[in-house]
Amino acid sequence: LDYQHVQVPFEITLWIMLASLAKIGFHLYNKLPSVVPESCLLIFVGLIMGGIIYGLNDRSPPVMDSDIFFLYLLPPIVLDAGYFMPSRPFFENIGTILLYAVVGTIWNVFGIGFSLYGICQVKAFRLQDVSLLHNLLFGSLIAAVDPVAVLAVFEEIHVNEKLHILVFGESLLNDAVTVVLYKLFRSFCEMPTIKSVDVFAGVGKFFVVGLGGVLVGLSFGFTAAFTTRFTKDIRVIEPLFVFLYSYLSYLTAEMFHLSGIVAIISCAMGMKRYVEANISLKSHTTVKYFMKMWSSVSDTLIFIFLGVSTIGENHEWNWPYICFTVIFCLIWRALGVLVLTFFVNRFHVNTITSKDQFIIAYGGLRGAICFSLVFLLPDFHRKKLFIAATTVVILFTVFIQGMTIRPLVDLLAVKRKRESAPTVGEQIHIRFLDHLLAGIEDISGHWGQYYWKDKLEYFNSKYLQKILLREYDQPKSSIVLLYEKLERKHAIELAQAGQLGHGPAHPSFLCSAFLCSSSDRTVRADQKSEDALNPDVLDNMQEILARNLYRIRRTGPAYNRHTLPGDSEPTEQAKEILILRHTNL
Amino acid sequence: LDYQHVQVPFEITLWIMLASLAKIGFHLYNKLPSVVPESCLLIFVGLIMGGIIYGLNDRSPPVMDSDIFFLYLLPPIVLDAGYFMPSRPFFENIGTILLYAVVGTIWNVFGIGFSLYGICQVKAFRLQDVSLLHNLLFGSLIAAVDPVAVLAVFEEIHVNEKLHILVFGESLLNDAVTVVLYKLFRSFCEMPTIKSVDVFAGVGKFFVVGLGGVLVGLSFGFTAAFTTRFTKDIRVIEPLFVFLYSYLSYLTAEMFHLSGIVAIISCAMGMKRYVEANISLKSHTTVKYFMKMWSSVSDTLIFIFLGVSTIGENHEWNWPYICFTVIFCLIWRALGVLVLTFFVNRFHVNTITSKDQFIIAYGGLRGAICFSLVFLLPDFHRKKLFIAATTVVILFTVFIQGMTIRPLVDLLAVKRKRESAPTVGEQIHIRFLDHLLAGIEDISGHWGQYYWKDKLEYFNSKYLQKILLREYDQPKSSIVLLYEKLERKHAIELAQAGQLGHGPAHPSFLCSAFLCSSSDRTVRADQKSEDALNPDVLDNMQEILARNLYRIRRTGPAYNRHTLPGDSEPTEQAKEILILRHTNL
Repeated sequence: LDYQHVQVPFEITLWIMLASLAKIGFHLYNKLPSVVPESCLLIFVGLIMGGIIYGLNDRSPPVMDSDIFFLYLLPPIVLDAGYFMPSRPFFENIGTILLYAVVGTIWNVFGIGFSLYGICQVKAFRLQDVSLLHNLLFGSLIAAVDPVAVLAVFEEIHVNEKLHILVFGESLLNDAVTVVLYKLFRSFCEMPTIKSVDVFAGVGKFFVVGLGGVLVGLSFGFTAAFTTRFTKDIRVIEPLFVFLYSYLSYLTAEMFHLSGIVAIISCAMGMKRYVEANISLKSHTTVKYFMKMWSSVSDTLIFIFLGVSTIGENHEWNWPYICFTVIFCLIWRALGVLVLTFFVNRFHVNTITSKDQFIIAYGGLRGAICFSLVFLLPDFHRKKLFIAATTVVILFTVFIQGMTIRPLVDLLAVKRKRESAPTVGEQIHIRFLDHLLAGIEDISGHWGQYYWKDKLEYFNSKYLQKILLREYDQPKSSIVLLYEKLERKHAIELAQAGQLGHGPAHPSFLCSAFLCSSSDRTVRADQKSEDALNPDVLDNMQEILARNLYRIRRTGPAYNRHTLPGDSEPTEQAKEILILRHTNL
Repeated sequence: LDYQHVQVPFEITLWIMLASLAKIGFHLYNKLPSVVPESCLLIFVGLIMGGIIYGLNDRSPPVMDSDIFFLYLLPPIVLDAGYFMPSRPFFENIGTILLYAVVGTIWNVFGIGFSLYGICQVKAFRLQDVSLLHNLLFGSLIAAVDPVAVLAVFEEIHVNEKLHILVFGESLLNDAVTVVLYKLFRSFCEMPTIKSVDVFAGVGKFFVVGLGGVLVGLSFGFTAAFTTRFTKDIRVIEPLFVFLYSYLSYLTAEMFHLSGIVAIISCAMGMKRYVEANISLKSHTTVKYFMKMWSSVSDTLIFIFLGVSTIGENHEWNWPYICFTVIFCLIWRALGVLVLTFFVNRFHVNTITSKDQFIIAYGGLRGAICFSLVFLLPDFHRKKLFIAATTVVILFTVFIQGMTIRPLVDLLAVKRKRESAPTVGEQIHIRFLDHLLAGIEDISGHWGQYYWKDKLEYFNSKYLQKILLREYDQPKSSIVLLYEKLERKHAIELAQAGQLGHGPAHPSFLCSAFLCSSSDRTVRADQKSEDALNPDVLDNMQEILARNLYRIRRTGPAYNRHTLPGDSEPTEQAKEILILRHTNL
């Protein structure tokens, strides 16, 4: 037995396997996921696992490594979020989202930091040694809403699209603010004196970190799109480029201390439309599927590890500090949302209702990012207190808020997501109105979002598409693509319905008629021979053959290393079958 | 700049990126791959890269880590090979393949080992310090034909299926023999005295290593199939299980010193038919696509690393030893093939022609497995000589033999692979003949391959399918599945042809008619209004609408974390469109 040799990949594979099996387990009991969010169940599994490890080894189970979290577990989730981001509601609400993400987060950081400092001054709590800077540092890591936790909960409660994108967008974009404030306070903690120039430099960093992330992401995204222009002969590695370039954008941003999350989201959103047009349909299915799969596994692993890491002796249980942290997190977020929404509503026709405000405030879940950041803190004597407080805040928000948000949404009758997606007719009207509004803005001289969107589209079709798309003869609009997709889908359904609707073409008939199934060879002896030669059956067979055998049908080519069975010269055969079927009808 | 932090994933991503871009580069020039095999080009790229690294750093570039090779690069290739293995020719020729893989490899090991020992006795070469055991150890690592190299070359020359499977099957299954002999001689080298019981234990190990690998593989394969029974509600992680279980089978086998290659191949071949029946069509596309992608990248990386590792100062250039190694490798393989084929042909009606024998002998390419094994040797003073000899043998076989095998196949007019795959009619006849032969064998009391195949099928349908398949109402035979696949494919072609055949449905028309493309908004001013209101165009529009708009068409649901847009209640809509289209015709 040589376990040492295979240990690393073996244990990684086993963890992923555990996560996947846990997921299957939950879905076997249909009632469970409708009551308790999956994230809670996974943390619970993690707690049990951690307890077992603790019980067996009699020492704290391993905590989630912050490097592993930031380098390997987080990127797939953010990539998935960015790639499948509904871009229309996102860009329509970008102003509000940025306000919540930047101003709201700063508000929360300072609010929580200063109030906790106030608590520390109470002598009875014995916390006087926690300085203001340490409280602000703690505030900077505990204030940020976590995209992973938000996604996990909001996916299941189906609130309306605007509300969803406000909370989700905030949780993604506050990364830039969190990175800056966290690093700023951490460096302040280690500095002997703080000059005012350092504070101003910190403010300047916001823009560098955020905009730098966007720039890095977009440049990698466009490079990815450009690369997929040349993959026509080697379809099999197309999906790889989507993953490689996105990941590189994240790593590059992290390397330059920019916001990796912002970078990977920009990369995914930037490349999506061009990559989709360049790569084959099967590559695209693979990209989408693998993204979902990867993010799903990452997400599961994060929650399980969160549970495992909670068990152990890393905590200092100073309950006043911990309780006040939870309370301040709730209060300052609620206040922040109220104040910011008041300003937002003054400038918008389509206001955010008070019910929506409540859900935005209540949906401010904390998760694995806080957890990883608190472990990355430099060692000082109160680190274990911060770890305990962070753990409690995460468990409180994920369990209590996560489990009660669904009943609250029902109770308050918050506007839900439309059950059905917009019809093609609606989409055409929306598109038409967009053009109309762009025209009105142009004439009235108001440079609003429609004006800029139109300019961007013009730039896109004039320059970008020519560089990034392989077949730039006629740009296909999204509605034409949708039409083609629906046609394809219905054709498949047609084939299935044709099989289901016409008795004789049913597989079981084919089986018995052609002796094709080897398993029914064993029951062949029981079949009466007149059954197989029944004139009705023969007629049916002839009918099937007349309808379907227009030419010798070829199966795909045999084993080939670098390609999957492709579709060669399809149109001729398809036309032939079309003509034959029509003459038969 | 914080490069240290992201170094590991960043460099891995960059290497994969380099490999993928190199692949794209080769395929841009269509003529190049038809003359030089891709493997040679990749080694060449690696040599250049290695030269650059050597030139810049003035020290040897890093050699390919054997652990990385065996744990991360080899499994995807072998999994791909096993999953897409054409099982019929493989099992038809399993006897011959095993003979080549086991007896042939042993023959080569001892042949090369003893002859090189003879060379070492020549005083002029100054090699008298290389013992017989060291020569045999070297023989054991240099004798094995490499599956990666064989696949890379044989994929491109399209010889007939039997010849292909003989060489390829041998290269895969000789792993068990190589593992045993290599470890045996290595432990002998470190033992003071060798007892005869050790030799017999070594012989017994063959069976343990080979059959153990098969058992481990099959058990993981069946577990994988069983797991996919329960993934109906969570389609997105289905592909994961295929990869996880295969990889676990490989790692488990390696852990117990069994043959990992044999294990992963058994696992892939065992699970394939059940997994395919259980998982959704899109999951299956993803599995296939990702396997191809992964193996393709691994393969590329291996050849590039092979090139990079060649550069440097790890070599001792004793040319007599190196030249004789190459010569003996060629001679002993040719002799082995001749002798073994002589016996094989005596017992088979369908004999292996002398042309085929030549290609089998000539196609014995060595590759990265030898290379990794030679670096794993314990340190002794002649290790650099062995490294040099291995490098030369690999480069000789991949470059000289790999580049000349295609012209030789042309020159000898070796029987090629059928251009077209067998038709459905042929397949039905083959199936019928199988049943017939099984019956004849049963009656005549001859327990041949058809008898056993039939027994296995019976066992499969009676027990295995009931346990491993989710929907065990009626087992679909491969021909019914093929029929369904063809129906689906033709339906898609029908949709495309319908669009292409009928002028008005052309995308560009839709564009201009519906103002749907935002890019043509910019040229809208140029369009004459009577053009859009042309009665012909209006008629065409009405025709399209009458043909296609049977009901409000719904697009997929909006963003959802865990699922891709699915297909709900398709048959009703499909029937409706069917009826509407038929009434229109």
